[in-house]
Amino acid sequence: MSTPPEGTRPLAQVDERISRSFAQHLEWVRTFVRQPSTSGEGRGVREMAELVAARLGEVGARAEIVPTPGHPVVYGEIDAGARRTLLLYGMYDVQPVAGEHWSVADPFAAEVVDDHVAGPSVVGRGVYNSKGPLACFLNVLESVQEVHGRLPLNVRFMIEGEEELGSPNLAAFVAERRERLAADAGYFPGFEQDSAGNAVIRLGCKGELFFELVSRGGDWGGPTRRAVHGSTAVWYASPAVRLAQAVASMFSLDQRMVTVEGFRDGAVPPNAEDEELLAALAGRFDPRTQLDTDEVRRFKHDLWGVDLLRVYLYEPSLNVNGIVSGYASEGTKTILPHEAVAKMDVRFVPRMRADEVVRRLREHLDRSGFPDIELRVDHAFPWSKVSAGAAPVRAMVETFRQMGFEPEVWPLQASSAPFYLLTDQLGMPFVTGGLGHGARAHSADEYATVAGMELYEHGAANFLYRLAEILG
Amino acid sequence: MSTPPEGTRPLAQVDERISRSFAQHLEWVRTFVRQPSTSGEGRGVREMAELVAARLGEVGARAEIVPTPGHPVVYGEIDAGARRTLLLYGMYDVQPVAGEHWSVADPFAAEVVDDHVAGPSVVGRGVYNSKGPLACFLNVLESVQEVHGRLPLNVRFMIEGEEELGSPNLAAFVAERRERLAADAGYFPGFEQDSAGNAVIRLGCKGELFFELVSRGGDWGGPTRRAVHGSTAVWYASPAVRLAQAVASMFSLDQRMVTVEGFRDGAVPPNAEDEELLAALAGRFDPRTQLDTDEVRRFKHDLWGVDLLRVYLYEPSLNVNGIVSGYASEGTKTILPHEAVAKMDVRFVPRMRADEVVRRLREHLDRSGFPDIELRVDHAFPWSKVSAGAAPVRAMVETFRQMGFEPEVWPLQASSAPFYLLTDQLGMPFVTGGLGHGARAHSADEYATVAGMELYEHGAANFLYRLAEILG
Repeated sequence: MSTPPEGTRPLAQVDERISRSFAQHLEWVRTFVRQPSTSGEGRGVREMAELVAARLGEVGARAEIVPTPGHPVVYGEIDAGARRTLLLYGMYDVQPVAGEHWSVADPFAAEVVDDHVAGPSVVGRGVYNSKGPLACFLNVLESVQEVHGRLPLNVRFMIEGEEELGSPNLAAFVAERRERLAADAGYFPGFEQDSAGNAVIRLGCKGELFFELVSRGGDWGGPTRRAVHGSTAVWYASPAVRLAQAVASMFSLDQRMVTVEGFRDGAVPPNAEDEELLAALAGRFDPRTQLDTDEVRRFKHDLWGVDLLRVYLYEPSLNVNGIVSGYASEGTKTILPHEAVAKMDVRFVPRMRADEVVRRLREHLDRSGFPDIELRVDHAFPWSKVSAGAAPVRAMVETFRQMGFEPEVWPLQASSAPFYLLTDQLGMPFVTGGLGHGARAHSADEYATVAGMELYEHGAANFLYRLAEILG
Repeated sequence: MSTPPEGTRPLAQVDERISRSFAQHLEWVRTFVRQPSTSGEGRGVREMAELVAARLGEVGARAEIVPTPGHPVVYGEIDAGARRTLLLYGMYDVQPVAGEHWSVADPFAAEVVDDHVAGPSVVGRGVYNSKGPLACFLNVLESVQEVHGRLPLNVRFMIEGEEELGSPNLAAFVAERRERLAADAGYFPGFEQDSAGNAVIRLGCKGELFFELVSRGGDWGGPTRRAVHGSTAVWYASPAVRLAQAVASMFSLDQRMVTVEGFRDGAVPPNAEDEELLAALAGRFDPRTQLDTDEVRRFKHDLWGVDLLRVYLYEPSLNVNGIVSGYASEGTKTILPHEAVAKMDVRFVPRMRADEVVRRLREHLDRSGFPDIELRVDHAFPWSKVSAGAAPVRAMVETFRQMGFEPEVWPLQASSAPFYLLTDQLGMPFVTGGLGHGARAHSADEYATVAGMELYEHGAANFLYRLAEILG
């Protein structure tokens, strides 16, 4: 069983094994989802790290749980005696479900919904983003080794528990372990077919800056230490109104423009390769599919085709993730609150810098009459980008084609992840994704289709062999 | 013991009895506070109604718990065989404590804090607003009857459990029981000395309109049914930003002006009696005491003296009680929320009307580009006002003077209560308050001083006899 892989023959055996084992494989996905691991709340995080480490052990890795000042990183190694090494970057944490209205009773029950609109699907937090793809990838490693005794690549694993917090401790982890993380290519598993079946590859991501605006009573006015009776609003200014004013001051009325001066300073237009990719995308990209998936009726821009895509990928966004002030539960409570907070983030594009964005936001608040409003930076990480010619990208493109999917190649993605650690800090080419379909990350009724997960596994096995060939 | 009261002699005996019984009286206050009765949440409301009815029975009233479509009203009668009747209007519900940061472990423990800044005080929800004053008044009725066998006035009781909800069912209750509520004067108990010891009487109150602004995704843009991933904010408009814009549009930057056109239509200036009272007040009113009590550093208006008072009482206020949208807990969750809600209220002055205010708010939203934002009226009640010459007001003024306090008479109060039901619907003169000091209604660390509660009780006994004399 230690015959080295050649062409597609060994893959046929692996494919057969994956199909035969898929019922158990799906149970691994459900097991991963059933263990809550909401890093924001710290719920189940330790247990999830242990589950991942145990599963790594089952698929032949030496695994350890490495503490950080926050949640631990699960590190692992499989030495396949191969010439080349893959670094699997993954995440075992998920978004909280607070405030979301799920159609299933428990977002952590990993129910299989047979009559799901997208076909039979697992509905649960993390099945798409990103414990489902992680579980499937580990299943693939298991199947390959069961069939062939060994993998075509050595694999190293860096699976973090703080991705949804913006990976605050991962940069230090990487800096301290450059040698043990060295690899020829990096990979982050994902189900990257859209609801119409298009297989998508994204060559980079925006950076992200997380911050809060905090409005409190002070020398400017307003209650300073606690809410006061609502009737005093005729005399006192309101920190909640002030926060609303500050947030409103940052946007044009139609929200098409961020009105913070210098907000997009440093942004560069798409390069030639990017424009070529955008042009190719524009012919295939269906904005209607995007709107339908998100249940949104219109874009805020009156744009179409390549122009709409260019805004999506090459413009920074300023977003309000949440606002809270005073009493907002059932019934009435007439108070003048002393504090109001907006949790916000900026997704910034190549070559913008987080520190420059912070400076511009602060200037805007000061100039607009809100010097008292605190701008509290949570954390930030930079954008990252690889070329379409990078080895893991080529391996993924070829895999998709061989499996009958002409990939949509996106030069960037609008969401953010700390891929810069691999591309810029560790200096390796990198790719994300795979076949399979899921959606509703960070939202109620997150799901991934059962058929898509099996397709992902066949594709991931193919990808491993292609990447080994390309790396040579 | 059935000697009718003459001059102050019978009062001396009552005073002695109150002083002797005060330790038990204080326990009644604490018992009332210890029973949570947050009408907004429905917590403990039934139990509190039963406790009040039981206590009414102990002080000689026939009491019943009358159901309403909401929380019940406790109705009671003491027939003292007197010529004149007092209607005691009270409330047994309190504000919720959610989101407040109390310095005591439990806002419903009714702890006596010996080293309180205002002197030994009971700290707890409702001890000031308004279960403490209610308990004390019932204590007084008990002491008077213990000493003299009967009260100088018949007393009827209407004690509601929805005052903090804006008394949505009390108007119907009153309309159905006009005869059983008939009385020569009305009274609402309260501790109305400020932190400097000034004894305050207020001759009326503003009306109040409770409403919500609800911003949701729709044809105008934005996610319509659930939050979507935060990265899509570059494409989609945000209902949260839109709510911030709508709220901001209603105020000048310095918040001195409500910029809703026609907002104060119908408001009339103070009449001659009011101006006289305002002028008298201005000499005694210390804005610094007000600021210190509320822990606010400045008024939003650059006014002083009578002008500051005139704004306070004769200008309507527009207030944000709370705002909520999206994810605002610990950690980060990058979503574009599909909904944002501001809970707001207007306190309106004589002769403004709630329906007119609603019309103006709606017009403002439509004209300002927010026709999609829902204006959801919760409920409203009108302002009310009595003259300084009304019998119960005179009785209260004389009581204060006899006890050594020259009252501050306010022609109105900035807060709101459904006193119009007594003054306008039942057509009786009315007064609120009494001696004693408490503060922080609707806020953390609500308190009332122990010494003030005893003082209240002596004053309330005095008031009963004075009122009986004046009514003749």
